[in-house]
Amino acid sequence: MSQDDFEASEEAHRNDPGVLRDAEDHLNPLWVERLRMLIAAAETETIAELVEPLHASDMGDVLEALDKEDRLRLIALLGERFDFSALTEVDETVRDEVMDNLSNAEIARGVSGLDSDDAVYILEDIEGADREEILAQMPAFERLSLKRSLDFPEESAGRRMQTDFIAIPPFWTVGQTIDYLRSEKDLPDEFYQIYVVDPSYTVLGILPLDKLLRSQRTVRVETLMNTNFIQVSAEEDQEEAARDFERYDLVEVPVVDANKRLVGVLTIDDIVDVIQEEASEDIRRMAGVGDEEISDKVTGAVRSRATWLFINMITATLASVVIGFFDATIEQMVALAVLMPIVAAMGGNAGTQTMTITVRALAMRELDSFKLRRLITREIVVGLINGLIFAVLIGIITAVRFANPSLGVVIALAIVVNFLFAGSAGVLIPIAFNKAKIDPAVASSTFVMTITDVVGFFAFLLLAGLWFGLF
Amino acid sequence: MSQDDFEASEEAHRNDPGVLRDAEDHLNPLWVERLRMLIAAAETETIAELVEPLHASDMGDVLEALDKEDRLRLIALLGERFDFSALTEVDETVRDEVMDNLSNAEIARGVSGLDSDDAVYILEDIEGADREEILAQMPAFERLSLKRSLDFPEESAGRRMQTDFIAIPPFWTVGQTIDYLRSEKDLPDEFYQIYVVDPSYTVLGILPLDKLLRSQRTVRVETLMNTNFIQVSAEEDQEEAARDFERYDLVEVPVVDANKRLVGVLTIDDIVDVIQEEASEDIRRMAGVGDEEISDKVTGAVRSRATWLFINMITATLASVVIGFFDATIEQMVALAVLMPIVAAMGGNAGTQTMTITVRALAMRELDSFKLRRLITREIVVGLINGLIFAVLIGIITAVRFANPSLGVVIALAIVVNFLFAGSAGVLIPIAFNKAKIDPAVASSTFVMTITDVVGFFAFLLLAGLWFGLF
Repeated sequence: MSQDDFEASEEAHRNDPGVLRDAEDHLNPLWVERLRMLIAAAETETIAELVEPLHASDMGDVLEALDKEDRLRLIALLGERFDFSALTEVDETVRDEVMDNLSNAEIARGVSGLDSDDAVYILEDIEGADREEILAQMPAFERLSLKRSLDFPEESAGRRMQTDFIAIPPFWTVGQTIDYLRSEKDLPDEFYQIYVVDPSYTVLGILPLDKLLRSQRTVRVETLMNTNFIQVSAEEDQEEAARDFERYDLVEVPVVDANKRLVGVLTIDDIVDVIQEEASEDIRRMAGVGDEEISDKVTGAVRSRATWLFINMITATLASVVIGFFDATIEQMVALAVLMPIVAAMGGNAGTQTMTITVRALAMRELDSFKLRRLITREIVVGLINGLIFAVLIGIITAVRFANPSLGVVIALAIVVNFLFAGSAGVLIPIAFNKAKIDPAVASSTFVMTITDVVGFFAFLLLAGLWFGLF
Repeated sequence: MSQDDFEASEEAHRNDPGVLRDAEDHLNPLWVERLRMLIAAAETETIAELVEPLHASDMGDVLEALDKEDRLRLIALLGERFDFSALTEVDETVRDEVMDNLSNAEIARGVSGLDSDDAVYILEDIEGADREEILAQMPAFERLSLKRSLDFPEESAGRRMQTDFIAIPPFWTVGQTIDYLRSEKDLPDEFYQIYVVDPSYTVLGILPLDKLLRSQRTVRVETLMNTNFIQVSAEEDQEEAARDFERYDLVEVPVVDANKRLVGVLTIDDIVDVIQEEASEDIRRMAGVGDEEISDKVTGAVRSRATWLFINMITATLASVVIGFFDATIEQMVALAVLMPIVAAMGGNAGTQTMTITVRALAMRELDSFKLRRLITREIVVGLINGLIFAVLIGIITAVRFANPSLGVVIALAIVVNFLFAGSAGVLIPIAFNKAKIDPAVASSTFVMTITDVVGFFAFLLLAGLWFGLF
């Protein structure tokens, strides 16, 4: 269905309300408008026909496009026909709104139909008593497996894993395995490999489906399986698991508990989300917008940004105090006030460049001891060279602008000094934070900017004061 | 093998040179040191035993850890035993160095052994005549398929696709298909699904291996296949293909040419790299470090950053000219010079926050027309609220610090004005660039910073001049 929509959207007119997405892959406003009218008219049957064929991800986008009232109304109209998997595809703010409006019984019923990883994703945001009540209303087998997942730490492999998998003993033959798959009704919806386990559920090997299909019926699976495989611990952070997927091009890995027993599998589709989230998190943290999402309310956004702005206020005040030391100097030569922001801004930019390269390399675990040493040297050298280039440029511009060659020399010297500090701080501060187990993406930029501001103002005003004998 | 290393690394002592990676997943310096000594002693056999079992990705990290001389020596020592797939896992600078040092005949031989997507990845960086010469030395079938991939645009799905896949006719039964897989020797190394095609190679449906395995031998594949599938055009940008994978949780998709004929398949492992690259690109572009990698030489880094610094120089000079208009005002009240960087810095931060949220949402295609309108309103409101909060705070601090309540009022007013501009510019500028098909990650931050600097200085100095009658 999504394919039909997809194909159609490429050719169709933008004015066709039957098309879900326009050529740029955005939701078609006409489609959404039509749905909105159907919701207002409470045309439940027509709505169900329209949304039931949608992929969870498309339905998620539709939910996000509706305003709160229409969204809740839509879900109420659909009732049991609403597929909860769409809730795994919306921003947290939207999900919370929807969940707040559903009874625990409704949630229990909706979640029961989901894959275990999707169910955990929804339940992990629900607090204590409510969560217990929801779990209590679910079938025993599902309840136990969800509880086990929820017992693992937040953002761990155990939380993201799917607890449905196929495990077989090593002495089975290919024929036995295929016969089992043909006769067994209760298999996962989709699977890419079969796990060969001993009686205690320790993984002995992995059997990709293509290997099974290429082999004769009489071959025993233990002679076919890969014994050379990656497995992740359920306690492990999802980011670490993601790195294994990236590094070794994996599609599915077994997840084991503390006793090395197979408890679930992680699949690449969940990991793609993790990779995407982690990258966005780095970008947002460097800019001081925390874990904000675009659906967050005004109050949430104000709060998440105020912390950063508050820290920045202290930093800016500090820089201002440094300038204050030189007020008498500035009074004698106002050109200094006119020029000093240039020194600070250039240093700030150079520092941010170095810092960004370093923070990203740390996040991707690219910096082993060899690359680390090279990076530090390179950044300081790059800082010096760019410092010299822009010192000359800005020195000349200043000398001409103020018809004062000495002022050009002073600003040039200050820029070289500030670029050197910018390069060193930009590479060393994130590394130091990383060593101290503080996320370098969050903390580095304030520190680097403070240094480039303070050093920029101080170096320029001090050098000017000395050169022109203003003290 | 990687698994053995991996498992072992978790328990082993850091001082064991037999372990490839330490507990933090970084390369073990002792392991690398040992390899370096073996290279110096030209112990080819021992080296081969050490590196041949490594996963391409681990071998890539080892190549990056060595310095240039050792790296080239290692590849020369290994000769035909060097697995070129490691070259797909290193930074471009390192790959270029290695390729420059190999003859075209050596490259042709090395690339022949690779999967088609890996071969294309290596060959696409090699220019005209050399590439032709290399292709000419390869087996005809491989040459044709590589040429076809290389004819597609850079960063297209056609460049990233694997040209090895399994296609069968719709009238085959499950039994026939399995028998074919068992007898055919020339199958792809790994595959997750089988493509059901008509005689012109139009894809009729997709058969995931699990479905094949669950079905009785007599069932015809056309009754089993998914007819509701995504296919991507070979001309399509890899980023767009990546979005399909993310949105619809895909593992492999068929790639079709302009005539809708199946020409290859895209697999999730390549897409994971695309997602990772695109996210890093956004981060780097926002900070003005272009497409720099941590292995880039000093000259490369100086060049890639100088453009940004040059633009920033013009911006900073512009802001400085604005201050220059008010030199007489500053001369009468030096406190203005001491305070003005606070107004600019706070506005710059608020603008960057809004801009980051907007740029990221645009990159992830999260902004349909509904969310866009909401985001614009939200950002301007958030700017206003945070502006008021920090106006009051900084106003009070200033009034106390300079024992001058009027100065507090003036700076507070300037901050509110600047936050309003910051919020509006932060959201509207990236959206405008995006509409104009200019990458908002590259261009937005200079513009936003210019606006917050200029507006900050101008508003503060103008208001102060008016309030205190300094003009």
